Amino acid sequence: MNKSEIIAQIRTKKSFLCIGLDTDIKRIPSFLLEYEDPIFEFNKRIIDATKDLCVAYKPNIAFYEAMGVNGWKSLEKTIQYIPKNIFTIADAKRGDIGNTSKKYAETFFSTYSFDAITVAPYMGLDSITPFLNYTNKWTIILGLTSNKGSSSFQYLNLDNGRQLFNEVISSSSKWGNTENTMYVIGATQSQDLIEIRKLIPHHFLLIPGIGFQGGNLDDVIKNGLNNEVGLLVNSSRGIIYAGNDTQFASKARDVASSIQIQMSKYL
Amino acid sequence: MNKSEIIAQIRTKKSFLCIGLDTDIKRIPSFLLEYEDPIFEFNKRIIDATKDLCVAYKPNIAFYEAMGVNGWKSLEKTIQYIPKNIFTIADAKRGDIGNTSKKYAETFFSTYSFDAITVAPYMGLDSITPFLNYTNKWTIILGLTSNKGSSSFQYLNLDNGRQLFNEVISSSSKWGNTENTMYVIGATQSQDLIEIRKLIPHHFLLIPGIGFQGGNLDDVIKNGLNNEVGLLVNSSRGIIYAGNDTQFASKARDVASSIQIQMSKYL
Repeated sequence: MNKSEIIAQIRTKKSFLCIGLDTDIKRIPSFLLEYEDPIFEFNKRIIDATKDLCVAYKPNIAFYEAMGVNGWKSLEKTIQYIPKNIFTIADAKRGDIGNTSKKYAETFFSTYSFDAITVAPYMGLDSITPFLNYTNKWTIILGLTSNKGSSSFQYLNLDNGRQLFNEVISSSSKWGNTENTMYVIGATQSQDLIEIRKLIPHHFLLIPGIGFQGGNLDDVIKNGLNNEVGLLVNSSRGIIYAGNDTQFASKARDVASSIQIQMSKYL
Repeated sequence: MNKSEIIAQIRTKKSFLCIGLDTDIKRIPSFLLEYEDPIFEFNKRIIDATKDLCVAYKPNIAFYEAMGVNGWKSLEKTIQYIPKNIFTIADAKRGDIGNTSKKYAETFFSTYSFDAITVAPYMGLDSITPFLNYTNKWTIILGLTSNKGSSSFQYLNLDNGRQLFNEVISSSSKWGNTENTMYVIGATQSQDLIEIRKLIPHHFLLIPGIGFQGGNLDDVIKNGLNNEVGLLVNSSRGIIYAGNDTQFASKARDVASSIQIQMSKYL
């Protein structure tokens, strides 16, 4: 999916919501455990209930991996079930030497046909290039994360006066372009968005951390929106675990709908 | 496997060789393609031919992931086939927020029973803690990598006079201890080993990059060895692809043997 198609979907749906499918067998409603593939059954119902309200789904690969072969089967079915006009992001945070990154790119762009993958940039240019070599696929680089541990290294001060996250974003923005690269920017640090938008005014930003991680949606929109929208805002647990009984999907829809309404005011 | 067991294996075998199982369906001898599971068949023969010469195997997870469900099945069979007194490392370079890292830890320590996993530390403390919570399991933190792209960020100068890799190693060495944490240190940068050994004199180091990536084994040993050995030196392609015909396993053994002989001089 290319950038103009993503923007067209956003304008049509009046939404830049991404729903994170962090589907955990221990957290889904118990009645689903009777199905042959409870994880897929859960995802299917979430997708059915929310697909008109969001423009992207982001399965968190760790949750599928942890279930072994069955998890990967559930993931494959989920990807095939998502409508083709919805953007799919493998939240995998991969990053390795070129030879190995090439295999990770093959995994998520070819074996599983995702539109995008999140990647860790710290191993440098050759760890990212293999992802950029695919046409109409997106590499979403970790720019600044929303967890407490982001303070361990991402805010370190460099001798050039910049902070590390700032340098990483600035350097890596030259590796690809605004048609194949996005950035993960943790919403809980939305103050930093103003500074980051100066560095990369035209890139799409994937903003996690709305909801459970404490990010404020209005702040994110005010500081992050550009003239092509330029934002995908993710919520995972806040939506998919809004309910825990037979009505879980409609409860997920209610939360997604309230976010979509809030977003529509800015579009 | 705990530290004293690893050291005992090293002393017994007079080897600290780790063999990387970067098994690629496109590179294995063609006669293996007739088998039901060519990847496992390849690994099985490599293991049979080298298990007395090495103390660790390190499957590179990207190569298995890229094959989808079948790849994970091959990986599972491989792990089960490796003798229990040989250390197993999932080269996965995972790293995410705590909630997600917990799932990655579950994947590799519980679902697949590896002894160790390589992790990326840049998301900070809470991205690593879930791995450290397992008993008798090892977290191998990326300290300095052997690829060309390591220059993109790892050598950045901080305002405290340190380079980034130096700061990452120093800070993260306080998160765990020498009984549950090792470091990946790229061998092509073996000059840096002297400096790194001052920071973490007692940690085990996993050294990739011997062979194809250009590292020199004698230099690595001179600069990295400590009084508990403290080194696992990895070779992947240089060993497993030493041959490409029906004799590939014995050719792999020849290369592994020459490395083991070189190592034995220092033990």
